[in-house]
Amino acid sequence: MSTAVTDDPTSLSARVAAAAIREGTLSSRDLVNACLSRVNSRDPSIKAWHFLDPSLPRKEAEARDGAPQAARGVLHGVPVGVKDIVDTVDMPTACNSPIYRDKPARGDASCVTALRQAGGIVLGKTATTEFAAFTPTQTRNPHNPGHTPGGSSSGSAAAVADFQVPLAIGTQTAGSIIRPAAFCGVVGFKPTFGTIDRTGVKPFADALDTVGVFARTVDDAALFAGAMAGWPEMRRGRAPVAPKRVLIVRAPAWERISEESEQAVNAAGRIFEAAGVPVEEAMMPDGFDALNEVHDILHVYEGHRALAYERAQHGESLSQGLRSHFERAEAKSFNTYLAARQTQEAWFQRFDAELEAGEVVLTASAAGEAPEGLEFTGDPAFARTWTLLHLPCITLPQGRGPKNLPLGVQLVGPRWDDLSLLGAARWLAEKLA
Amino acid sequence: MSTAVTDDPTSLSARVAAAAIREGTLSSRDLVNACLSRVNSRDPSIKAWHFLDPSLPRKEAEARDGAPQAARGVLHGVPVGVKDIVDTVDMPTACNSPIYRDKPARGDASCVTALRQAGGIVLGKTATTEFAAFTPTQTRNPHNPGHTPGGSSSGSAAAVADFQVPLAIGTQTAGSIIRPAAFCGVVGFKPTFGTIDRTGVKPFADALDTVGVFARTVDDAALFAGAMAGWPEMRRGRAPVAPKRVLIVRAPAWERISEESEQAVNAAGRIFEAAGVPVEEAMMPDGFDALNEVHDILHVYEGHRALAYERAQHGESLSQGLRSHFERAEAKSFNTYLAARQTQEAWFQRFDAELEAGEVVLTASAAGEAPEGLEFTGDPAFARTWTLLHLPCITLPQGRGPKNLPLGVQLVGPRWDDLSLLGAARWLAEKLA
Repeated sequence: MSTAVTDDPTSLSARVAAAAIREGTLSSRDLVNACLSRVNSRDPSIKAWHFLDPSLPRKEAEARDGAPQAARGVLHGVPVGVKDIVDTVDMPTACNSPIYRDKPARGDASCVTALRQAGGIVLGKTATTEFAAFTPTQTRNPHNPGHTPGGSSSGSAAAVADFQVPLAIGTQTAGSIIRPAAFCGVVGFKPTFGTIDRTGVKPFADALDTVGVFARTVDDAALFAGAMAGWPEMRRGRAPVAPKRVLIVRAPAWERISEESEQAVNAAGRIFEAAGVPVEEAMMPDGFDALNEVHDILHVYEGHRALAYERAQHGESLSQGLRSHFERAEAKSFNTYLAARQTQEAWFQRFDAELEAGEVVLTASAAGEAPEGLEFTGDPAFARTWTLLHLPCITLPQGRGPKNLPLGVQLVGPRWDDLSLLGAARWLAEKLA
Repeated sequence: MSTAVTDDPTSLSARVAAAAIREGTLSSRDLVNACLSRVNSRDPSIKAWHFLDPSLPRKEAEARDGAPQAARGVLHGVPVGVKDIVDTVDMPTACNSPIYRDKPARGDASCVTALRQAGGIVLGKTATTEFAAFTPTQTRNPHNPGHTPGGSSSGSAAAVADFQVPLAIGTQTAGSIIRPAAFCGVVGFKPTFGTIDRTGVKPFADALDTVGVFARTVDDAALFAGAMAGWPEMRRGRAPVAPKRVLIVRAPAWERISEESEQAVNAAGRIFEAAGVPVEEAMMPDGFDALNEVHDILHVYEGHRALAYERAQHGESLSQGLRSHFERAEAKSFNTYLAARQTQEAWFQRFDAELEAGEVVLTASAAGEAPEGLEFTGDPAFARTWTLLHLPCITLPQGRGPKNLPLGVQLVGPRWDDLSLLGAARWLAEKLA
């Protein structure tokens, strides 16, 4: 592994930076300061951060630089962004809501503890839509500030894309990692549901909420997610391995796909084909197209239960958008919810029959480029069914669209086959590079 | 429904008390004061409460008594106990750990909001084992203070059994509702995993943690759990309906069953048989007996991840017992954990084939009577497999053992068939009465 250090350490991958810090060719202080000065110059227009106090990461970096080499973990000295629905004991966790502006968390989320134990440094808290739902932040797309970065993990995607930080935590309940990663031109990885522990992450939908990561390379995504999950085989990274079979899924919501997103999928398909990988157009089983609606039921119903306290005691502090979202839940019965849970579970098995270990689905990450304006974080339709099915998903940057904004393609693997998915993603990323 | 009020309102069921309060024949103030004076006289020896400030429930009761009748919910004016791992905004939530003694929760747990919206009043926070694991509280069994009340929901079980409160919230990750309910001679109900939202409940094991209730009647358990779940058909209560078939399961851990617990199961079986219900001795599929071990893997591994912050930053404040528990996790690999998750899920389907809607498993709630002493809350072996399988479970008081302590029998239903299970439990409870 090369540990050569350029003049600007913000361009380093996390894995390279960590290796350089371990070997003493780069100090954590220099890396953190380089990130902070990038934040300083760029963030007034990007607004990726809800909270950033430079003295905190600087102090951590000093401590990391003083640590004996033997005690240096896989993220030693590397700064990361933490989505502001994820608890931190030394920084506020406001969920982009006035309700929690002045109420400190009781501790670090378990994933934050894991990243700190691996030597990582929390640079600050990244902007999130309100409670990771749909009401946007002020964050802008680093590729064009007139466009949304996507959401809900808006600041995490933007900060990584803008080289303000090499890694950031995201969460996905509908399409909150895959969509902003695609819009911002970075790698977004949502592991299998349950891979990274959720303790200390503000819940929205218990049957859907998944912790994942943003990075600029597949290898960095694996490193970061693996470190937080405590999954050594993931953390160590995966060699590029072509998938055994590629299933192109042009569903659900394919009637809303843009020409450029479809072309990105086709181009990726041709890359696999050219390498002799069997590529098939999938005929998904009956009922597959209705799964986005099943997801929607869980999303509104569980969200409305999970935020019961905020609705009851601080209703006037919730955005109109979130209140409308919850009003839709009031019209749903427990039995409707129950049926949706049962459909979800039945589809775990049905989907298991579609895709074997080592195989991947190839599909769109989003309808197209990031929409103009900041009012709408974009359509999550291309991610939500995969979230519902608890499948590991990764989006890779794949060229640009007509407005010169990034496009992505999404690979989806069988549940718990995250290691093969990462190998396939790395294989494809190298061909796309 | 009778709403006759005795001289001592602490003996009323929650449903009767709520009806009396709605109709104006009982005031919430009188009920709360009666519970508080019971606490006052009894709790110095029982120690069911971690926190109880009489001024708080008294103030709530005043407000409830002033509410218009039309605005009175199903728990209007009824005091309940809340296990001290469940967040409350106006009372401490310490999880029986010095780590959280002085750190307030950021809001009410969603289940607490639900009970308050139904008109319920939080009387106080009930004693829990440390983080709802195995290190005991000082709570004593109301039937004999030399014996444990069981755990982890020790105070909830004891307070309801001792008529200090008619209802209490519990949680079950291994056997933390069923076992203490049986030891204390009350009804304990753990609904299907996911029935009651967990937001604001301190996590221990994401794939196991389940919110449930303690009550003195099946009907009260249904009322309380249904109100917190937002499941109207549960909340309204179930008519007694004999199950379609009873499967007696003498597993797992049956080598540790006491004669009296086995007799309680046999007696319940004969009651069903006498009424013409088909009763069969179950031959569980291969591998069933090993499920307690699968549960143990999830319990230690997920617990060690969920409490990562406490381990890393406050390790010296954890009990030796909990630290040893977590040390066992260090020896387990992520792949071991993953295999356990997959076994768990495979068994959801395998068990679905064993039990149809309307049928129940009849088994023991615990090995026998509550053990002597407070050092050990008892063996959770008779509950943990059912928790692993996410099945709804209910324990009913069923006579007394050789030490004159309560015994219980457990009924278990298919997932999401909670309504049938409650109907069957009510049917059996009436025969046992």
